[in-house]
Amino acid sequence: MSLVVVGSVALDTVETPRGRVDDALGGAALYFALAASFFTPVRMVGVVGADFPRATLDELRRRGIDLAGVEEAPGKTFRWTGRYHEDVNVRDTLHLDLGVFATFRPKLPDSYRDSRNVFLANIDPLLQASVLDQLPAPRIIGCDTMNHWILESRPALEHLLARVGILVINDEEARLLSGERNIVKAAAKILSMGPTSVLIKRGEYGVIQFAGDSVFAVPAFPLEEVTDPTGAGDCFAGGFMGELTRSGDTSAAGIRRAIVYGSVMGSFVVEDFGPRRLLQLERADIDRRYRQFVSLTDIDGD
Amino acid sequence: MSLVVVGSVALDTVETPRGRVDDALGGAALYFALAASFFTPVRMVGVVGADFPRATLDELRRRGIDLAGVEEAPGKTFRWTGRYHEDVNVRDTLHLDLGVFATFRPKLPDSYRDSRNVFLANIDPLLQASVLDQLPAPRIIGCDTMNHWILESRPALEHLLARVGILVINDEEARLLSGERNIVKAAAKILSMGPTSVLIKRGEYGVIQFAGDSVFAVPAFPLEEVTDPTGAGDCFAGGFMGELTRSGDTSAAGIRRAIVYGSVMGSFVVEDFGPRRLLQLERADIDRRYRQFVSLTDIDGD
Repeated sequence: MSLVVVGSVALDTVETPRGRVDDALGGAALYFALAASFFTPVRMVGVVGADFPRATLDELRRRGIDLAGVEEAPGKTFRWTGRYHEDVNVRDTLHLDLGVFATFRPKLPDSYRDSRNVFLANIDPLLQASVLDQLPAPRIIGCDTMNHWILESRPALEHLLARVGILVINDEEARLLSGERNIVKAAAKILSMGPTSVLIKRGEYGVIQFAGDSVFAVPAFPLEEVTDPTGAGDCFAGGFMGELTRSGDTSAAGIRRAIVYGSVMGSFVVEDFGPRRLLQLERADIDRRYRQFVSLTDIDGD
Repeated sequence: MSLVVVGSVALDTVETPRGRVDDALGGAALYFALAASFFTPVRMVGVVGADFPRATLDELRRRGIDLAGVEEAPGKTFRWTGRYHEDVNVRDTLHLDLGVFATFRPKLPDSYRDSRNVFLANIDPLLQASVLDQLPAPRIIGCDTMNHWILESRPALEHLLARVGILVINDEEARLLSGERNIVKAAAKILSMGPTSVLIKRGEYGVIQFAGDSVFAVPAFPLEEVTDPTGAGDCFAGGFMGELTRSGDTSAAGIRRAIVYGSVMGSFVVEDFGPRRLLQLERADIDRRYRQFVSLTDIDGD
């Protein structure tokens, strides 16, 4: 199996109540790829500027991340500067420079064409659709989006959703997309737009999945400290799609286990600034935390 | 086994976006007793005024609720009028008349003295302690409290908590009581005050329990509509303590199953105004929803 991800690659400067990091690796596609690479080889589609560190690209390749689809364009890499509050659910964007990302048009190299699984991280739905157009035989199509596209590009987004299998969004986006405040009603409406499954991220409360008549809820891992929440949702998606690609098991149980692996990856990344924790992570850490999730949720357990 | 509950009995007038109810049965002890009565006989301690409907007292007795400890005092029953917003986590108290509850001093009848399990619903911690003083051999001591006592009666509350086994509070109260924003740190601090287990209610996100090194999280049941949230937390506590009293199983697994039964009862009461839904409930409904909770949370399931 093979997994393609398209989305942003960035250099982030982040301030949280726990400290600060400058020019950390960032962007949805990059967080996704790092998390998914623990489960399966990943093929990335994105763009970086001339200022993007070469050593980082080498490091990503060593981790089984294929960068054939990452264009190196003249100009500057997408840069984001943000500040999180004591309540880490609240953040301000202090500075945003799209750089080479402003004119990004995803192009899949021929070597990616046989990919079966794809994740369309949060970018313009027209660009997300153009990636699908370049894949002859996709099997599992995952997708993220955000308030901006829901409000500003609704027709393109609805057109895209009709082609998507699994939508991964947060609760606020689910409410905005559906026009329903209640999460059960919101999910039903979203499923009627196309996806067979919707995964709604609820931050420190975990994830709830709706698919047909089935509902699955998994709490977030209770952490003593969240150092930097950046990338949590993208690592969730990466762990989820990575495990699903590895196992090839799209049964209800297979999807549930993949959701837990996604939750595991989301719980790790927030323990340190940027992707630092992911870069130190070993496979055994992942399996240990998966077992902790089982114990955390097992009614007859412990 | 036998289960005593002490707390308020009230007549509630409630307005929600779904409608309105006047003079509905209310109060923490009453919601608790109704929920617990599906699992075990309940002995109530409280006070009602001369205006409290006789037929209701008869109905409670028919449900196996012992009212020997419910005093009928001259004067008016505790009355609360409140309004919930579209976001049902927000409510305003429009009117409050303590009536006979203002001078309530719990007195346990001799027939209650052999009770082993007790739940101290949210009242003045000095009164909660006085109930413990009247019980020669309590086994499981559950307790609720609220912001008012945490802020205004801290010494009495801390004294009480040293005697309590299981504290049931909401997340805001847990933060206020511990002075910790992070829920893991908050729980650790609360456990150091005495309880062996703390159950933190998180509204539409369910309940998380901390006991020693063990953590258990159960989501709330995803409902299409919340008609009236009044009593949800008290019914949670009633289902929890009721099942624990029925089973006598205080192992980790026994407590987890009781937490799920509590969640079941909390999920039912909000489906209609006041305790209406509880009064129509059959035991089979409870078992059916318990199985739905299992399916909702089972990683390898569905």
